[in-house]
Amino acid sequence: MKVTVWNENQHEKTEPRVTELYPGGIHAYLAQMLQCDDIQCRTATLDEPECGLTEEVLNDTDVLIWWGHMAHARVPDEIVDRVQQHVLAGMGMVFLHSGHHSKIFRRLMGTTGNLKWRENAKERIWTTCPNHPITKGIPETFTLDAEEVYGEPFGIPEPQETIFISWFDGGEVFRSGCTWTRGNGRIFYFQPGHETNPTFHNPYVQQIIKNGVHWVCPVEKNLPLTCPRVTALEPISSPCK
Amino acid sequence: MKVTVWNENQHEKTEPRVTELYPGGIHAYLAQMLQCDDIQCRTATLDEPECGLTEEVLNDTDVLIWWGHMAHARVPDEIVDRVQQHVLAGMGMVFLHSGHHSKIFRRLMGTTGNLKWRENAKERIWTTCPNHPITKGIPETFTLDAEEVYGEPFGIPEPQETIFISWFDGGEVFRSGCTWTRGNGRIFYFQPGHETNPTFHNPYVQQIIKNGVHWVCPVEKNLPLTCPRVTALEPISSPCK
Amino acid sequence: MKVTVWNENQHEKTEPRVTELYPGGIHAYLAQMLQCDDIQCRTATLDEPECGLTEEVLNDTDVLIWWGHMAHARVPDEIVDRVQQHVLAGMGMVFLHSGHHSKIFRRLMGTTGNLKWRENAKERIWTTCPNHPITKGIPETFTLDAEEVYGEPFGIPEPQETIFISWFDGGEVFRSGCTWTRGNGRIFYFQPGHETNPTFHNPYVQQIIKNGVHWVCPVEKNLPLTCPRVTALEPISSPCK
Amino acid sequence: MKVTVWNENQHEKTEPRVTELYPGGIHAYLAQMLQCDDIQCRTATLDEPECGLTEEVLNDTDVLIWWGHMAHARVPDEIVDRVQQHVLAGMGMVFLHSGHHSKIFRRLMGTTGNLKWRENAKERIWTTCPNHPITKGIPETFTLDAEEVYGEPFGIPEPQETIFISWFDGGEVFRSGCTWTRGNGRIFYFQPGHETNPTFHNPYVQQIIKNGVHWVCPVEKNLPLTCPRVTALEPISSPCK
Repeated sequence: MKVTVWNENQHEKTEPRVTELYPGGIHAYLAQMLQCDDIQCRTATLDEPECGLTEEVLNDTDVLIWWGHMAHARVPDEIVDRVQQHVLAGMGMVFLHSGHHSKIFRRLMGTTGNLKWRENAKERIWTTCPNHPITKGIPETFTLDAEEVYGEPFGIPEPQETIFISWFDGGEVFRSGCTWTRGNGRIFYFQPGHETNPTFHNPYVQQIIKNGVHWVCPVEKNLPLTCPRVTALEPISSPCK
Repeated sequence: MKVTVWNENQHEKTEPRVTELYPGGIHAYLAQMLQCDDIQCRTATLDEPECGLTEEVLNDTDVLIWWGHMAHARVPDEIVDRVQQHVLAGMGMVFLHSGHHSKIFRRLMGTTGNLKWRENAKERIWTTCPNHPITKGIPETFTLDAEEVYGEPFGIPEPQETIFISWFDGGEVFRSGCTWTRGNGRIFYFQPGHETNPTFHNPYVQQIIKNGVHWVCPVEKNLPLTCPRVTALEPISSPCK
Repeated sequence: MKVTVWNENQHEKTEPRVTELYPGGIHAYLAQMLQCDDIQCRTATLDEPECGLTEEVLNDTDVLIWWGHMAHARVPDEIVDRVQQHVLAGMGMVFLHSGHHSKIFRRLMGTTGNLKWRENAKERIWTTCPNHPITKGIPETFTLDAEEVYGEPFGIPEPQETIFISWFDGGEVFRSGCTWTRGNGRIFYFQPGHETNPTFHNPYVQQIIKNGVHWVCPVEKNLPLTCPRVTALEPISSPCK
Repeated sequence: MKVTVWNENQHEKTEPRVTELYPGGIHAYLAQMLQCDDIQCRTATLDEPECGLTEEVLNDTDVLIWWGHMAHARVPDEIVDRVQQHVLAGMGMVFLHSGHHSKIFRRLMGTTGNLKWRENAKERIWTTCPNHPITKGIPETFTLDAEEVYGEPFGIPEPQETIFISWFDGGEVFRSGCTWTRGNGRIFYFQPGHETNPTFHNPYVQQIIKNGVHWVCPVEKNLPLTCPRVTALEPISSPCK
């Protein structure tokens, strides 16, 4: 399986806390975490030509992971179009945390991706689908001592399956793990992962991302997207013909 | 619209707190609350012949509200069969609180209805579908100072729509408002309503139940349930015939 | 209820058959058909300034009906953005026939809207949800002697409910009636309605469009779309704070 | 993976055509077809003690395939209860053809399973989810020269995903491949497979059943089904306590 980890890589340039937590950037950290016999990882970032997401790269990607936050607007629309076409043709996507507001997430959902937010609370994650492939190895509940709060209502279409729901100690709840299918591609959104928190060091979070990558991995990709004129397959017998 | 409020009416016999809160029983209280120009209400309870749910009563019921808790097992299977047939033929149902473990809820869901529970916590209810007919007039969030905790995972099929999610002050979350369609009938489950709490006095809870009754009210009921042998509607032209 | 019927109104300029069937254009015909005590109808077309879809018009529209075919690309992106925002804020939409390929349908779905097509076959429509408000008054099956064939696979997200499935006499099938919710807005797609066929004269088709308009009509519209920073609603007690 | 193929094995006793097509019975044929390095198959039939579905057998079964038709009523309710509990605890199920009317299918769905039927028509199956694991290796459309017609409306809850829709040459359509999740268990229904037709010899049908078995195979099974009283996980700080 070939995974591309995309990160806008902007906080890393100005906030030492981020590279302290994730040397080389969030993308480098996640790629290293995922890399294994079965998974071949590359990274791509906003400042590379074409955001690092050329046709060649996407043609060679089974699963694209997306982390973005402060620079969503700087992703050109033609890159958004291109990524969308690849998802519809079969490529899987895992959106992490603030990726809920990326152009490509909103494009695939058709909605705002809006939510309530607040910094630095205790989060308790609950598994609502105990036997889903994405929750394999994850306990019924686990906590993150400090994570950014995202609260309902969340501006998404009703998920195919709501896998995780989170509790926050200031009174909020959030559908923190959701799946959808768009065209031939599968999508998984997972809420934790604020850039100044050590969330991606948490072994359960790591396992969920790994499971998510496997779940969205397509049967086939680069499938044709056409709207063909066809001829009748069965003999037409109705009197009106 | 004709509504029948069913209550097992058992706690009322032994716990003064319940009739203190709900004189005449939970069924009487809810019926009085719902009664209006548009809604004609009757009640039915476990100890009546056929649980008060005769064919005549169900034929004349658009929406059945269900409250039960300690005596689920005493509802005879033939009554469960009968109610199920009426739902599949179009009758709407609103399940309140501990109705999640009633035979008829589990029959319609195909699942356990299991959950975690704990007494007497603060509940905060969040609206996740702000423009759903059931959330009309309900704020984004409201609280109940004391309600029984129900916690995830909740043993239900993925809802058609998850309308409310609740937060509890001991760390639990729960999908507290959910809808499903079964055959020609619509179903709404709403979690609050423990017998020793004044929950049904809360104006938002009352509004949600009213909205729910309207949402599950069928276009038509008593629709036939058949599995007919039919004849071809179109001329058969395939060579194999 | 205020309904705006949008039609690109291009076939009407060059194909006499269309205005013969629908004097004044498809928009005029549909508006006249829908107009009644409860429904106040206006029309809008591609060649009007801002496609006839100004902020004023959309602010005053509960339900927008969309018919387009040969000129999808001529609808400016800012109009698509504006219509999408109104749907997410609560406005209902009914998409007819070739509206499956409009920019706004694809924007709300996140998918291609692709399908197979072929001209002029016999279509048989089956109701799969007999008690849905949109199928009220519609028989289990009815036929259109000549309609354009649309065939699966249809490039849409799994519908909230699949209400109609069509059979065509050349061997195709199609999910011809589907619903979705996006943000606060409801969406209904209905497949029949090729410009050179008398489909909109069919009383069942008319009834389905009327039912659809009522079903997508919002509880509230012009709801705010925000992503606010909030403060904690509950006292924060966790040791980590 | 351990698969148990259940067949009521009644037609086989009186209709030579069935054993001619499927020597040893439908169960034997399917078990032999599925048996491979990855899949260990056993069979079970109605006339065995406990229908061959003892606790030992079910504890040792990852996926249960179900074929039944004329003797649904002879499956005892305690066996239905037992199979349901195993599904809710994680066991996958594949229902074939007339299994739509089995007690266990109706139990898991909560609905009638009703449909229209007619013998011996040409069926054309369309794939509506081209990239679903169950459609891997299956063309967009293929035909069966003679299969029993099942027609809409089909008395099922809205599927999690509608994977196949069938066309029949007498004018019917049918959602012929559908998935659901119930508790921890996954369910796949596939419509073809009438006992007097050579349907299970068709290589695409065989591939679909194999794919279905893999898709419903659980991550874990024999998961506990409980409704526990719990204690608070977070410090309770609300003033009302």
